[in-house]
Amino acid sequence: MSQKPSNPKGTRDFNPLTLKRRRYITNTIRSVFASFGYNEIETPSIEKRNTLYQKYGSEGDKFIFNIINSGEKIKKADIKSFNNEKYNDFISSISEKGLRFDLTVPLARYVSQHQSEITFPFKRFQIQNVWRADRPQKGRYQEFTQCDADVIGSNSIMLEYEMLQLFSDVFRKLKLDSVNIRINHRRVLNKIANHIGIVEDFNEFLVIIDKIDKIGIDKAKEEVKNKFKDLRNLDELFEMISKKMSPKTYLNNLKSNFIDHDDDNLLDEIETLSKLIMNDKKLINIEFDLSLARGLEYYTGLIYEVSLGSDSEIGSLGGGGRYENLTEAFNLKDNSGIGISFGLDRIYHVIDDKNLFPKDLSLNNDILVINFGKKYLIEIFEKINQLRANGWKVSIYPDNNKLSKQFNYSNKNNFKYALIYGESESESNCIKIKDLQSGSESNFGFEKFIKNFKG
Amino acid sequence: MSQKPSNPKGTRDFNPLTLKRRRYITNTIRSVFASFGYNEIETPSIEKRNTLYQKYGSEGDKFIFNIINSGEKIKKADIKSFNNEKYNDFISSISEKGLRFDLTVPLARYVSQHQSEITFPFKRFQIQNVWRADRPQKGRYQEFTQCDADVIGSNSIMLEYEMLQLFSDVFRKLKLDSVNIRINHRRVLNKIANHIGIVEDFNEFLVIIDKIDKIGIDKAKEEVKNKFKDLRNLDELFEMISKKMSPKTYLNNLKSNFIDHDDDNLLDEIETLSKLIMNDKKLINIEFDLSLARGLEYYTGLIYEVSLGSDSEIGSLGGGGRYENLTEAFNLKDNSGIGISFGLDRIYHVIDDKNLFPKDLSLNNDILVINFGKKYLIEIFEKINQLRANGWKVSIYPDNNKLSKQFNYSNKNNFKYALIYGESESESNCIKIKDLQSGSESNFGFEKFIKNFKG
Repeated sequence: MSQKPSNPKGTRDFNPLTLKRRRYITNTIRSVFASFGYNEIETPSIEKRNTLYQKYGSEGDKFIFNIINSGEKIKKADIKSFNNEKYNDFISSISEKGLRFDLTVPLARYVSQHQSEITFPFKRFQIQNVWRADRPQKGRYQEFTQCDADVIGSNSIMLEYEMLQLFSDVFRKLKLDSVNIRINHRRVLNKIANHIGIVEDFNEFLVIIDKIDKIGIDKAKEEVKNKFKDLRNLDELFEMISKKMSPKTYLNNLKSNFIDHDDDNLLDEIETLSKLIMNDKKLINIEFDLSLARGLEYYTGLIYEVSLGSDSEIGSLGGGGRYENLTEAFNLKDNSGIGISFGLDRIYHVIDDKNLFPKDLSLNNDILVINFGKKYLIEIFEKINQLRANGWKVSIYPDNNKLSKQFNYSNKNNFKYALIYGESESESNCIKIKDLQSGSESNFGFEKFIKNFKG
Repeated sequence: MSQKPSNPKGTRDFNPLTLKRRRYITNTIRSVFASFGYNEIETPSIEKRNTLYQKYGSEGDKFIFNIINSGEKIKKADIKSFNNEKYNDFISSISEKGLRFDLTVPLARYVSQHQSEITFPFKRFQIQNVWRADRPQKGRYQEFTQCDADVIGSNSIMLEYEMLQLFSDVFRKLKLDSVNIRINHRRVLNKIANHIGIVEDFNEFLVIIDKIDKIGIDKAKEEVKNKFKDLRNLDELFEMISKKMSPKTYLNNLKSNFIDHDDDNLLDEIETLSKLIMNDKKLINIEFDLSLARGLEYYTGLIYEVSLGSDSEIGSLGGGGRYENLTEAFNLKDNSGIGISFGLDRIYHVIDDKNLFPKDLSLNNDILVINFGKKYLIEIFEKINQLRANGWKVSIYPDNNKLSKQFNYSNKNNFKYALIYGESESESNCIKIKDLQSGSESNFGFEKFIKNFKG
């Protein structure tokens, strides 16, 4: 066979430098999650189709990668369904499993399956790949990495605050402390809708609110007017929606305008949260934004979205919220949870764009030992072991090629130093270290070098 | 929908402790690879079917997970082929991609595709999952992790030695320095076969040699006798094959018995390698074993296999060898390579069995802050930030539940310490730390604690 080799469209090879930069991000996220007491788990890439489809039903066919049953099972293909254009049934007849499309469905399955081993509240994080069969586009891939942290089994408002701390800590550590966290509360939106006269079709109201970014505030107002009759305080509402607010303003607005001090602890919760936010100088910029309405089908409480600012073309760098019914489909009820997710690819793009990756990531190869023939290599193999034990990354050029070729190799592969040990060094019992940036060379007694320099 | 949730057969969920232990192994391997100057890459889980099948042809159908084309493409199913029982063609009509089954085919594809960006020799490692559709069995999974290091583009014997160093360094760091590395040389086997009179059907000779572990030396000798006629020195050969040899014995045996000092540098190479081995006290036990014949279709030079010793029921913990034609199928010729692979699951099993996992992996949750109500939490949130900045992993119990419930949680989740900050601590401006192993409690001024204890 002869072919021009390529990876599938929508997938990527990561070369050493790109991978190091991705790891810089994921390891930062991992260390922050861990410092807040979250424990990492991993679940299989493959889930049963009836696990995957419980969230989306036959909608799932648009973006789930289904895996063909192996071996003899292919004989069970339901050709009748195929001929009747019932493609979903046809696929079901030859596929029992698929690739996960998010880390939320596997989390729900994991928590339900292992509930007897877990002492709740369960604080877990997961950094793994997911796959989506959507058509690949610029910046949208069929295989990508999600970084999720969730707490299952508590509805404490402390956790709403903890999510803000996690976002802040990660983006500060990545030197992206100029990002915004916008937050809103699903139940506040509900109350407001009631207050202005919307009782039924709340979700349709949300759908319009959710579009404000795209269609503008006036058009949205128009749509709400057309859709719902006899609404009260509509101007006030859209006045408020059009502004991003500080926690204090948001709270005062809610108190004076929309929410009755009555049936539940919603105001209390927002008051506590506002206090915690105002009290914490390490948080990055947080705005309450009544127009934020993500995850319509899923979130039930506070919702989060992190972005570069409203004028940026790059979408959300992270988001999340509180949900109630994650594990209900698996027969585990009353299990309130809250979670956030970081978008690795967009964060990578922003850091790259702002030139904020640490410089030393690109100079990771420490020392290349120049090959002057096996005699000299054998003489210093033991010393090279010592260098490695001292933290140096040491590579030996495997062939006794021309020096120009060896130095070209060290250059192209971004080595910091070349170690030269040939006839004259062997005779004078020293090593020569060449700094490949400056070009300067120095001789060292080996013991002295080991003592004074660590990798 | 209501179902008993479960992960697919042959796959695994990794809970926090198991994952930490797996990471202990993979991070050890990763750090050794890096210290020898190997650079990490990642390739997509998904490859094109014509990439995957170049290695195995239609044999591949037995163990490759094929992915159904998404969207409208399903309509192109070749029902005629199905009806004619040409299942391979049927699958080809609905599947363009599959999950990789090893890291070697992706490496070949990567090197060929990116050859213009690579300055050879290319030292890469890769630690990623692979998938095989074989029937799941005890200890055999459909999704598992491979840890591979390879050098492409040099045939220096230094690299044969480097592979031995890599194995030794990894297993020493994992405290498994009692393992054996058995090695053999494909060309030595070839020479021996010629010497005793086998000229054609060399691979059939190898197939018999490869079975010695299972069928015993006498049966193998019988099979060779039956298969080939007029062989010379057969008793000598099987005498030699039945022994594991030191490098020196192996070399002497080759010199005096089987190999002519003629056509190539084979003896030279083995002599250099033996010298390097005998010169290096950090290598683990190495035996030359003429009965070792792994990777028949693939390896062309030295071959490696690491195991617990011949009496162990656990198979190979690692292996590898030199190959010539890795990238030939992708039109990149004359690219000799050498590589090794570590079997994560078996290594895990052995370390677990010998109780050699570091103890502190199971006590990773540092401090649980007991919740005495939000008043006290708000007071010490800033201090908790300082603890985290000092390396402590700090979790706050999110709800103001009964103390017994909170301590049960800390117990079940293996916390080392509880931090108690309630009314009396607030009044006397201190924190109380309870050691959850010993049960002892101590009060600290916060600044003093921060100064004296790091996480």
